[in-house]
Amino acid sequence: MAALGLRAFGTKGLCWLRRNPWAPLSAGFCSRGPGPRPTSARQREGIRNIVLSDPKKRNALSLAMLKSLQSDLLHEAESKDLKVIIISAEGPVFSSGHDLKELTDEQSPDYHAEVFQTCSEVMMLIQNHPVPVIAMVNGLATAAGCQLVASCDIAVASDKSSFATPGVNIGLFCSTPAVALGRTVPRKVALEMLFTGEPISAQEALLHGLLSKVVPEERLEEETMRIAKKIASLSRPVVSLGKATFYKQLPQDLRTAYYLTSQTMVDNVALRDGQEGIKAFIQKRKPIWSQCSGQFPQVSASPCHGLNSVPTNFLR
Amino acid sequence: MAALGLRAFGTKGLCWLRRNPWAPLSAGFCSRGPGPRPTSARQREGIRNIVLSDPKKRNALSLAMLKSLQSDLLHEAESKDLKVIIISAEGPVFSSGHDLKELTDEQSPDYHAEVFQTCSEVMMLIQNHPVPVIAMVNGLATAAGCQLVASCDIAVASDKSSFATPGVNIGLFCSTPAVALGRTVPRKVALEMLFTGEPISAQEALLHGLLSKVVPEERLEEETMRIAKKIASLSRPVVSLGKATFYKQLPQDLRTAYYLTSQTMVDNVALRDGQEGIKAFIQKRKPIWSQCSGQFPQVSASPCHGLNSVPTNFLR
Amino acid sequence: MAALGLRAFGTKGLCWLRRNPWAPLSAGFCSRGPGPRPTSARQREGIRNIVLSDPKKRNALSLAMLKSLQSDLLHEAESKDLKVIIISAEGPVFSSGHDLKELTDEQSPDYHAEVFQTCSEVMMLIQNHPVPVIAMVNGLATAAGCQLVASCDIAVASDKSSFATPGVNIGLFCSTPAVALGRTVPRKVALEMLFTGEPISAQEALLHGLLSKVVPEERLEEETMRIAKKIASLSRPVVSLGKATFYKQLPQDLRTAYYLTSQTMVDNVALRDGQEGIKAFIQKRKPIWSQCSGQFPQVSASPCHGLNSVPTNFLR
Repeated sequence: MAALGLRAFGTKGLCWLRRNPWAPLSAGFCSRGPGPRPTSARQREGIRNIVLSDPKKRNALSLAMLKSLQSDLLHEAESKDLKVIIISAEGPVFSSGHDLKELTDEQSPDYHAEVFQTCSEVMMLIQNHPVPVIAMVNGLATAAGCQLVASCDIAVASDKSSFATPGVNIGLFCSTPAVALGRTVPRKVALEMLFTGEPISAQEALLHGLLSKVVPEERLEEETMRIAKKIASLSRPVVSLGKATFYKQLPQDLRTAYYLTSQTMVDNVALRDGQEGIKAFIQKRKPIWSQCSGQFPQVSASPCHGLNSVPTNFLR
Repeated sequence: MAALGLRAFGTKGLCWLRRNPWAPLSAGFCSRGPGPRPTSARQREGIRNIVLSDPKKRNALSLAMLKSLQSDLLHEAESKDLKVIIISAEGPVFSSGHDLKELTDEQSPDYHAEVFQTCSEVMMLIQNHPVPVIAMVNGLATAAGCQLVASCDIAVASDKSSFATPGVNIGLFCSTPAVALGRTVPRKVALEMLFTGEPISAQEALLHGLLSKVVPEERLEEETMRIAKKIASLSRPVVSLGKATFYKQLPQDLRTAYYLTSQTMVDNVALRDGQEGIKAFIQKRKPIWSQCSGQFPQVSASPCHGLNSVPTNFLR
Repeated sequence: MAALGLRAFGTKGLCWLRRNPWAPLSAGFCSRGPGPRPTSARQREGIRNIVLSDPKKRNALSLAMLKSLQSDLLHEAESKDLKVIIISAEGPVFSSGHDLKELTDEQSPDYHAEVFQTCSEVMMLIQNHPVPVIAMVNGLATAAGCQLVASCDIAVASDKSSFATPGVNIGLFCSTPAVALGRTVPRKVALEMLFTGEPISAQEALLHGLLSKVVPEERLEEETMRIAKKIASLSRPVVSLGKATFYKQLPQDLRTAYYLTSQTMVDNVALRDGQEGIKAFIQKRKPIWSQCSGQFPQVSASPCHGLNSVPTNFLR
């Protein structure tokens, strides 16, 4: 059974812009097409590591890279064995953004549309994914590469990292990266980055909300794994319900947001893991989380949860 | 006559979720039920101090605590003698959030719903209250305790304070606290707090917008009182109109926001205290504010103010 | 042909509040009415400098000052020779906000309405203007003066600058400045400024997102000109398309925002300057931007761009 957020990526979700639906790589997680896959992925103890693995091309988000990343994110996303995802990169550049060779007029506008549409789908997939996604950045992230960092739930970077949206320098304003950037940093910071193309340091990125944490390079993996292991030790149904509800309530007015989340709290208390956690706390023992994937909360599938059906009298 | 925001807390406002309307403590401000009240309140020179007074239970926001706090906020809210409210706490913990003993399956889902609904009402009441509400924090504020800080208009904390949303550790994701937190700090900061449950320091909370000011512990009361006295020296009708308008315009598009606030400015200029203040400034003397509570601005009661009736041609 | 954003300032846009439409100064850019104009403007190499030039009145935003500023912003806004605008001020005060002598009851409510409406129009014009607008601040900016800084796309200030919304001190809550301030800094910072009227330093303003950059006074002009020259070296059609799209997508939900911006990216790639920039980058040479003003992107005029017509199936 597919997790909540993933339902949004059905056939219809894929038909926007000017092209036909594109089906996710049916080949699945570890398969390879012709030539090496531009990402690699491995999973252990609930933590999936997805690595952008095309350092020669500065990990450009080519269409092949985007589809490979999408496939790695979607692979068994609903499995109870998956608790958290880390996205990192090989080499000194986290990602340089789109592959400009795919954006010349040697390709059709439909092809260009496919590139931007697939990129947007991947960014929305991260937010709609049932488990937290952490960006681990060690180096330069520019344009759609900066967008990828801004789109993750959590972002940890080394102090030598930097971030820019330099598309304007080559006549291609970073309008899609601006969606993620503009929802992460103050607008004056976003606009100076977008209008000048100049990079900001990791410390500035932290100051302005683009990053969750900055650490020395030698501690980057340790700190990221510490956060990932912490999340992997928690109840997946509880974390998934919390993540989905967070993004659901954020754009709502205060009253609707409290209506939605108060319902979620009641539902969360009623979950097996909710009761187990509370009892373990009161009894001063460690909780034993459910490992049953059937426990995964059906936030909007069940009418009794009602996240999609605010009664009209509430809204008056 | 009830103030603007409070009208939202009529019978209907209280019927959401799965329970019957709950009536505010009719006992009023200084009365006691069986056992000591979990909050105490006193008022002097326009400044009301509400203190969470159950340090043995780490000032847990039990249903009794929430109702007592609600009662202290609502008590004569429309009185001209009330200018500003400070919420503080006894003991080393500002508040540890909900009382978990009220959330086990020994209580019914309806009871759980009452807990979360009452909590949400209190948080919205702070924003809808006609006078500014300041949190004065000296210690740890977690879960709904952190939500309470985030919900106040202004928050001053000692440098030894810290803030966390650790519900995920006990299988109960802080989804209602996330409503206030997600509107106060950048989303990457909010999500790391929510997913890991780890605390942030007062300095980090200041950096990210959860606090207005951080001071050494020995200066906490002095600094908070300085702000409160400043507000108490101002015109209540003007401050109330400004607060209500601020929250009203914030979620609107820019054009609607300027329409609403330009109207408010014209109305504000026409208030007795508006003219008195401007004249006093021009004449280089101290203004003498109206103390007439009938002067309180009827923001949405009067059709001529029109905050609720943007003409359709304006919105085109 | 008028640029995108300016269409919003037609006759209808000007009729809100209680007065008749006001026509922009037909006298144009360099003309003078009776007495000296309260702003001065000059343009060189694509950079227009508009200077608030009434230091004796602390550059108060009188109706005359607002109309002069509006005229300088609107003057040949669609010309390909204009790339970026800098707003600065003569004297130690950037601007002290409205002229209080225009707000006494010696003037009619209709006159007060004209003041606030014109001020709101100027602030929205900055955001809707086809080129970036930079505030260069060296001194105190209060009330509507602080609003002006908050309304610019980029704001650079000297370290001796400070910012306040002190209207509450004179019984006139800064409700219109709060529109810009509340969209720029965290709400707790905004509310403390609004409720107490106390100033924040340039460093605090930077920390909280009101400024893009703070530099020593002696470097203010150099740094601002560096940013302006950078923007002036870029493609105007690309920058204009990017600015308009940024503000258009910001209030949308994520899916709509990505739909809008993915379309913009495809359109941007198809622009002459888009292809020129990408090819120049691949060929490792400097791009040669189009200087043809007919190239200016017709974001919403052309149905094929469709920024205003999200297909219904996309939104499901």
